[in-house]
Amino acid sequence: MNGNAHPIAPLDASLLKITHVETLKPVPTPGTYGFGDIKTDYMLVMEYTAGSGWSAPEIKPYGPLALDPASNCLQYCTNVFEGMKAFIGPDGKARMFRADQNMTRLVSSAERMGLPTFDPDALLKCITALVSIERRWIPAENGHSLYIRPTMIGTKASIRVGKSDSALLYTLVTPVGPYFPISPAIPHPTLAGVSLLAISEHVRSWPGGTGGYKLGLNYSPGFVPQTLAAQEGYDQVLWCLDVGKKPEEGAVISEAGAMNFFAVLANEGSDGGITIVTPPLDGTILPGITRDSALQLLRAHADSLSTSSTSPFSSPLHSGSGPISVIERPLSLSELAQAAQAGRLLECFGTGTAVLVVAIERIGYYPLSKTTAVPIDSEHTENTPKITDIVMKGGLKGLGQVGKALYEKLGALKDGSEEWNGWNVVCE
Amino acid sequence: MNGNAHPIAPLDASLLKITHVETLKPVPTPGTYGFGDIKTDYMLVMEYTAGSGWSAPEIKPYGPLALDPASNCLQYCTNVFEGMKAFIGPDGKARMFRADQNMTRLVSSAERMGLPTFDPDALLKCITALVSIERRWIPAENGHSLYIRPTMIGTKASIRVGKSDSALLYTLVTPVGPYFPISPAIPHPTLAGVSLLAISEHVRSWPGGTGGYKLGLNYSPGFVPQTLAAQEGYDQVLWCLDVGKKPEEGAVISEAGAMNFFAVLANEGSDGGITIVTPPLDGTILPGITRDSALQLLRAHADSLSTSSTSPFSSPLHSGSGPISVIERPLSLSELAQAAQAGRLLECFGTGTAVLVVAIERIGYYPLSKTTAVPIDSEHTENTPKITDIVMKGGLKGLGQVGKALYEKLGALKDGSEEWNGWNVVCE
Repeated sequence: MNGNAHPIAPLDASLLKITHVETLKPVPTPGTYGFGDIKTDYMLVMEYTAGSGWSAPEIKPYGPLALDPASNCLQYCTNVFEGMKAFIGPDGKARMFRADQNMTRLVSSAERMGLPTFDPDALLKCITALVSIERRWIPAENGHSLYIRPTMIGTKASIRVGKSDSALLYTLVTPVGPYFPISPAIPHPTLAGVSLLAISEHVRSWPGGTGGYKLGLNYSPGFVPQTLAAQEGYDQVLWCLDVGKKPEEGAVISEAGAMNFFAVLANEGSDGGITIVTPPLDGTILPGITRDSALQLLRAHADSLSTSSTSPFSSPLHSGSGPISVIERPLSLSELAQAAQAGRLLECFGTGTAVLVVAIERIGYYPLSKTTAVPIDSEHTENTPKITDIVMKGGLKGLGQVGKALYEKLGALKDGSEEWNGWNVVCE
Repeated sequence: MNGNAHPIAPLDASLLKITHVETLKPVPTPGTYGFGDIKTDYMLVMEYTAGSGWSAPEIKPYGPLALDPASNCLQYCTNVFEGMKAFIGPDGKARMFRADQNMTRLVSSAERMGLPTFDPDALLKCITALVSIERRWIPAENGHSLYIRPTMIGTKASIRVGKSDSALLYTLVTPVGPYFPISPAIPHPTLAGVSLLAISEHVRSWPGGTGGYKLGLNYSPGFVPQTLAAQEGYDQVLWCLDVGKKPEEGAVISEAGAMNFFAVLANEGSDGGITIVTPPLDGTILPGITRDSALQLLRAHADSLSTSSTSPFSSPLHSGSGPISVIERPLSLSELAQAAQAGRLLECFGTGTAVLVVAIERIGYYPLSKTTAVPIDSEHTENTPKITDIVMKGGLKGLGQVGKALYEKLGALKDGSEEWNGWNVVCE
């Protein structure tokens, strides 16, 4: 990496040191806390400095970081992160799901921010050690897990605009329940589902931007739109490209709040098949690991219908006998609205580490301006534009056949009840 | 702001308290330090917490901030800032330039990030007190000043995705010289000028995005492109919209590195006039205060040519006798290239608090892909696309007639040598 006589130290998991806390905190009862609020006993920290490279990783008592007010991360937002989960399986063992993918994506995010990189395997070893020492914080309850948040921040203490040549790489863990609160009357996964609002005046990402990386800076611009969505009675924002276009001209779905977006459409014609569509990774969409897992599982199932290979699912994904297509392609609001009107929109769902798989119950569209925007239904008159929802076929509440199969399969793979492709790894 | 019985405390400058350092640091000699690296003795800090509101502002010894690892600012980049300068005038007094505008913009940025807001006048009073106590750090040398960096960060200690209901608002100051290093052989403002590279694969902002606010998160995505520009031999990136478009199809200039962009064109036809163009504030461009000041000064001059009003400039802005138009409108790379080829591109310059006014000497275009992009000159052949520069009329080096007049006028207004519209305010 450099031509100096002094080599830059790589991130070395064998140097991991542990500083123990004097008194362990009490672990709260699952169900009593919100998402991300609980602080555990430990955190994992390592530092990079120009010229020296990576310090020895340390697991130490959770506590505040001391940062210079001029720090690059505070001034210019060189902050990247990952979201992963550890689960307790029926065998009592703790497992992480495809964590190698998170490590690879974190390196890619760091590179995009001009931050120093590191050996992803070395970081994963250190995180595994953190999860092991925090074992008692992993809730075993259904729908609960230990959320793991690796974070990297640029620490150069200068307001000069430019890359940070020093960084802090730390990981915190926090016990979590379901991301969306569940009514006791409607247990997951038949949860009624979330509602999304497409807001034409707010665009999350765009060609040539940073929407395809997991950067902290992709999130805060969504806070004000999220408040607007909540005020209009929706759970999250549905991000679209092509701001300001009338929906029938093709506002294109990119992703949903903190999730990737999937739609299941009954095929036109009489083949009795279905098409599962998700927007392509064109650089404007987060390359979700749950998204990738869902696509791999669905494609293996679709292949099994025409070959002698084995499906990862034990039951069919739709009630008909036709083919299943799994396609990454642009999906516009107008296509979705037309499919809904024709009764072909079977289900929509979101995928993500935080939510796993969650039903999308309805989609609204918020006009750019009261005078020019056109809502997506046919009842529109030019003087009274309003939000009109796209709803699933038959007013479906909760996960449909595809979403439910994915929810159950991914849940079983994550907690180690089932195995597929070596995706879950026991934390030893 | 809330309906509680307990009122939320507003930011109150009359509560300002000062905690003195024990030993003052030595002030370094101007010319020996880079931009933004020096730490002075003090910083100004105030905290907002949900339910209580603003704490008493405090000027205290400069030092690290203690931040929870889960802080909203580190995880999701709710960080906003301002850039202002204090100058020592020929009368020995310290002055700030249009600082009220910075305060207003900071409030607007905070709102966009969902951060708590504050009374801009109250913050300005506290900053004035900080500048007064740090008086000895203001360099009096030509081209030098005390850079002031108000910063606000969201401090909610939870990784839950959403607005921060607590914040830290702090201000640091640092003595600075010219932003771009000046060769001793070429004193400012006849500085040869900077070069800009338009990179088609990187887009800073877009309609529906946050480019029109001064947010920390607008800066780090530019660090990797900036490195690319430097590798190609250019000083900064020229940000354009319409990524991937061939330049002749109209890649549109938005701004230049950390500056707003101006071009001066000789009019077509024979009226002997000039047109000064800068891109409009359409939400994709930082509403620069130096940009606004330049527009106001230039428009006052243009008006003076046709009315009996007084010009703020003592000499003409071009050698001809024709009219001067000052226009905010989109400006494409192809228009600039055509004007350059026709000998009508008289000058380009950038404006900003950090640079004041700086000459733009040449503009290059970096293709999206070696196989599809088209460079902006006519020597192009399809198999050998290359970077070809737009250069000013007659290969102009340094500021032209308009840029030089602005540089001198703004410099005189900033240090208090001259007065106009009450723009500079003495720090008492």
